[in-house]
Amino acid sequence: MQNQSLFVKMSLLTWEGQLKRATNLLNTLTDEQLSQEIAADRNTGAYVVGHLIAVHDAMLPLFGLGEKLHPELEETFITSPDKSGKPMPTLSQLREYWKEVHQHLGEKFAGLSEEQWFQRHSSVSEDDFSKEPHRNKLNVLLNRATHLGYHLGQLVLLKS
Amino acid sequence: MQNQSLFVKMSLLTWEGQLKRATNLLNTLTDEQLSQEIAADRNTGAYVVGHLIAVHDAMLPLFGLGEKLHPELEETFITSPDKSGKPMPTLSQLREYWKEVHQHLGEKFAGLSEEQWFQRHSSVSEDDFSKEPHRNKLNVLLNRATHLGYHLGQLVLLKS
Repeated sequence: MQNQSLFVKMSLLTWEGQLKRATNLLNTLTDEQLSQEIAADRNTGAYVVGHLIAVHDAMLPLFGLGEKLHPELEETFITSPDKSGKPMPTLSQLREYWKEVHQHLGEKFAGLSEEQWFQRHSSVSEDDFSKEPHRNKLNVLLNRATHLGYHLGQLVLLKS
Repeated sequence: MQNQSLFVKMSLLTWEGQLKRATNLLNTLTDEQLSQEIAADRNTGAYVVGHLIAVHDAMLPLFGLGEKLHPELEETFITSPDKSGKPMPTLSQLREYWKEVHQHLGEKFAGLSEEQWFQRHSSVSEDDFSKEPHRNKLNVLLNRATHLGYHLGQLVLLKS
């Protein structure tokens, strides 16, 4: 295996490993558990799940892979904090979006060449990218993996 | 820049980014806050911090960079759960170990060549490594970054 495909493989394994753990956890948590706060006076599990879906969905336009599937989630789960009164999908909808967005991302990611992973994402200018070539798509994926790990460490607190 | 050196840089930035966030958080949390549980009936902040130090310290022998600085932490913070009654360093000692271990790791990491980052770590056999070349030191570092993110998402709950 050439080193370049090794980098992509290592990054995808890091992302997929966190995603698999989160999906497994989500499948064991009941709607009642997900409606609870992860700790006293903190975000609810439902908000954290919606936040993750919205952040992951945003990788599509960021990577030039098409439009978001659920642009309406941004206002409730990224721009606004929990309990903002903004329209909130049901837990059953959130579970469906989770599957839908991650399946779609998986298909799109599989179609990216190694070269494309090392190209800039859409929120860095060509000029900045020429000076900071590490600001590529693969780097965003690594950041999303640690971000997912961060919230996974919180969602696990909802387990009985 | 070649993709190989770029990928080493991206991985180190991912690790260092999480480490910086954790160190900053630790510096703002009081000993009293760190003595609390991250959520009802869960691990204390002190246990989580000791666990992270012990796990990070173990990268030294795993990467062939020498012995652990604090091998005594393994029994309390890796093998045993919180509140096991095993000898527990004070918070002031833990804060000191945190600095010491991460400064030492930083120096050792700076001395690793790109080639060395892509070599196997000591818990994978040569035979397995020839079939699974992604099981290298850099991959462990990425895993440690998501593991750190996981616990960072918990420690942040101790903030008032």
